[in-house]
Amino acid sequence: MKTSFQELGKIGKYGRHGYFTTRRGRVYTPTFMPDGTRGVVKSLLPGQVASTGVQVVLANTYHLHLTPGEKVIKKLGGLHAFGGWRGPILTDSGGFQVFSLGKFTKVSEEGVTFKHPITGEKRLITPESSIQIQLDLGADMLVAFDHLIGLDKASAEDVKDAFERTHRWLERCTIEFKRLTKVMKPSERPLLFGVVQGGLDLDLRKKSLEFVQASDVGGIAIGGLSVGEGQAAMFKVLGALAPLYDPARPRFLLGVGEPTDLRFAYAHGIDMADCVLPTRNARHATVFVPGDKKMHLTNAKFISDPKPIEEGCDCFTCAGGYSRAFLRHQFKVSEPVAGSLASIHNPRYLERICEQYRVAK
Amino acid sequence: MKTSFQELGKIGKYGRHGYFTTRRGRVYTPTFMPDGTRGVVKSLLPGQVASTGVQVVLANTYHLHLTPGEKVIKKLGGLHAFGGWRGPILTDSGGFQVFSLGKFTKVSEEGVTFKHPITGEKRLITPESSIQIQLDLGADMLVAFDHLIGLDKASAEDVKDAFERTHRWLERCTIEFKRLTKVMKPSERPLLFGVVQGGLDLDLRKKSLEFVQASDVGGIAIGGLSVGEGQAAMFKVLGALAPLYDPARPRFLLGVGEPTDLRFAYAHGIDMADCVLPTRNARHATVFVPGDKKMHLTNAKFISDPKPIEEGCDCFTCAGGYSRAFLRHQFKVSEPVAGSLASIHNPRYLERICEQYRVAK
Repeated sequence: MKTSFQELGKIGKYGRHGYFTTRRGRVYTPTFMPDGTRGVVKSLLPGQVASTGVQVVLANTYHLHLTPGEKVIKKLGGLHAFGGWRGPILTDSGGFQVFSLGKFTKVSEEGVTFKHPITGEKRLITPESSIQIQLDLGADMLVAFDHLIGLDKASAEDVKDAFERTHRWLERCTIEFKRLTKVMKPSERPLLFGVVQGGLDLDLRKKSLEFVQASDVGGIAIGGLSVGEGQAAMFKVLGALAPLYDPARPRFLLGVGEPTDLRFAYAHGIDMADCVLPTRNARHATVFVPGDKKMHLTNAKFISDPKPIEEGCDCFTCAGGYSRAFLRHQFKVSEPVAGSLASIHNPRYLERICEQYRVAK
Repeated sequence: MKTSFQELGKIGKYGRHGYFTTRRGRVYTPTFMPDGTRGVVKSLLPGQVASTGVQVVLANTYHLHLTPGEKVIKKLGGLHAFGGWRGPILTDSGGFQVFSLGKFTKVSEEGVTFKHPITGEKRLITPESSIQIQLDLGADMLVAFDHLIGLDKASAEDVKDAFERTHRWLERCTIEFKRLTKVMKPSERPLLFGVVQGGLDLDLRKKSLEFVQASDVGGIAIGGLSVGEGQAAMFKVLGALAPLYDPARPRFLLGVGEPTDLRFAYAHGIDMADCVLPTRNARHATVFVPGDKKMHLTNAKFISDPKPIEEGCDCFTCAGGYSRAFLRHQFKVSEPVAGSLASIHNPRYLERICEQYRVAK
């Protein structure tokens, strides 16, 4: 199940731009994908998301599994019919949320048991059920279920253990994925991404990448970064992997949305990244401004500032003439429109970075 | 300062449809005006409001006076530049909020003193300052400052006292309005609406209408209704006034947004009405459905209902294919997009009623 990535140009020594094809059309890279946790990017309608240049929206398997449930969404025609987003949708595996949000999480070889945060009932997610859920949701790109561990309290042994389990689970994911998609025509089949783990151990990381690239997966996902290890440590891992990627497959960096991180990642072979922070920060009045800096719109100095968030920005909010003064006021009175308008600017800021890379020769 | 209402057809014996002209273009009537309390209709962008057929947005003088303040908005070019709404804006006088939200409200002949709900400082709004604030906000239609009293605890004497004060204050408003707008060309001048009071006393109501119509005002506002008196009592007042209106001026019913109330009002000479409830209810998942009924989208029976709010409805939300199941889910997880989508449907439902009246011969 190899995708065929079409390179259109280089970004530095290790980076590239180009496109790959999903069952719901081409994705031009590099690209940033906002998180539509509950089936939509919070505060935004699909047309507003599309206006930013976003091509792919991510949806969270864990949250949608809990409510309204993948069976409900499947019955309604899948996430595209449900939420109205027409471009490709990528679902994560649910692994990250199970580990970070689940209560009384227990990992066994079979999978992960956790307590439903609302009903309190026990739930088990296995590599197989993760694939089933993602297919029920109607994802165009899926992520294999991996074993994620927090780097802060992980011993070298824990990291190795998770790394090995991630590979065993990947084999189960690819088998289940093949079983469930074999009835589909090749053009209807979604892409499965395998996840590279290994913490900050460069040797494990390289072995993990080798393992994933030897598997029958359509894309490579880099997991377990941007979890508090610091920028230097993350860059070291990304730098070590950069020369080793299979050129035919797209590479997805999970959970990264800081402009400086993205610039480094795109220059080191990453094609796509997702993060909840650019839109979450926007809803809390924190927006990107030139120089990859952040501006807090609730600051009192903006009370009668007629300028847009970013002068010259072509996003709906800045080009539409919404002033800092207006946004500050609406944030101060808890008006949801403020969050929507700021949530349009931030992804646009990131997509513009991507678009600048996409013209490189 | 007489407007010239152009009648295009009748609605029953006392009603009519047609148009009048403001400095920001024509308003076709009957029409419903949503409340943009803080300078925008909550949860909606101007383009979304316009998509519903809404022509005029109301803004709340009291709220905008408190924050960010009319001087800030004036400096930024007025409410139109501030919030991006291009059609006419009507500001209320602030009177309703001073009486219903202000703490330690004290009425004197001069005006109303109240405590600022955040800073605690004493504020005084007079008929003159209400006009000044509304002009600073950049309103195309203003409402004279009136003395509103709750009907529940008002004696006949209280009602008469408020009725008389409202008339004295109207004289002060028209003088101040003339003074402040005399530098404007006639085509740049906004319209001032005088307010009819008199509680449920039909005799006082008729006298009040006579007084307002004898004043130099561009429009007639009916205040002090829909404040808990019940539909029958309100209809009695509207019925009594219906034969007495000056045909040349638009008539505005304050605070009414129930479909059955609007139908009666439009059939009895009312041209325009405003209410915060259709959009507030929408944000709380309560939407209009045919038969002037309400539907609560959070109901469990909608969990996998693929139908739109209203089948055949041409609003962005229904025509866009957003299902009850989708909206229910997004309301249950407190997703702001649910409130936006429902807030598009409700005004559209009301504007459609208006549009149906506008074709009557």
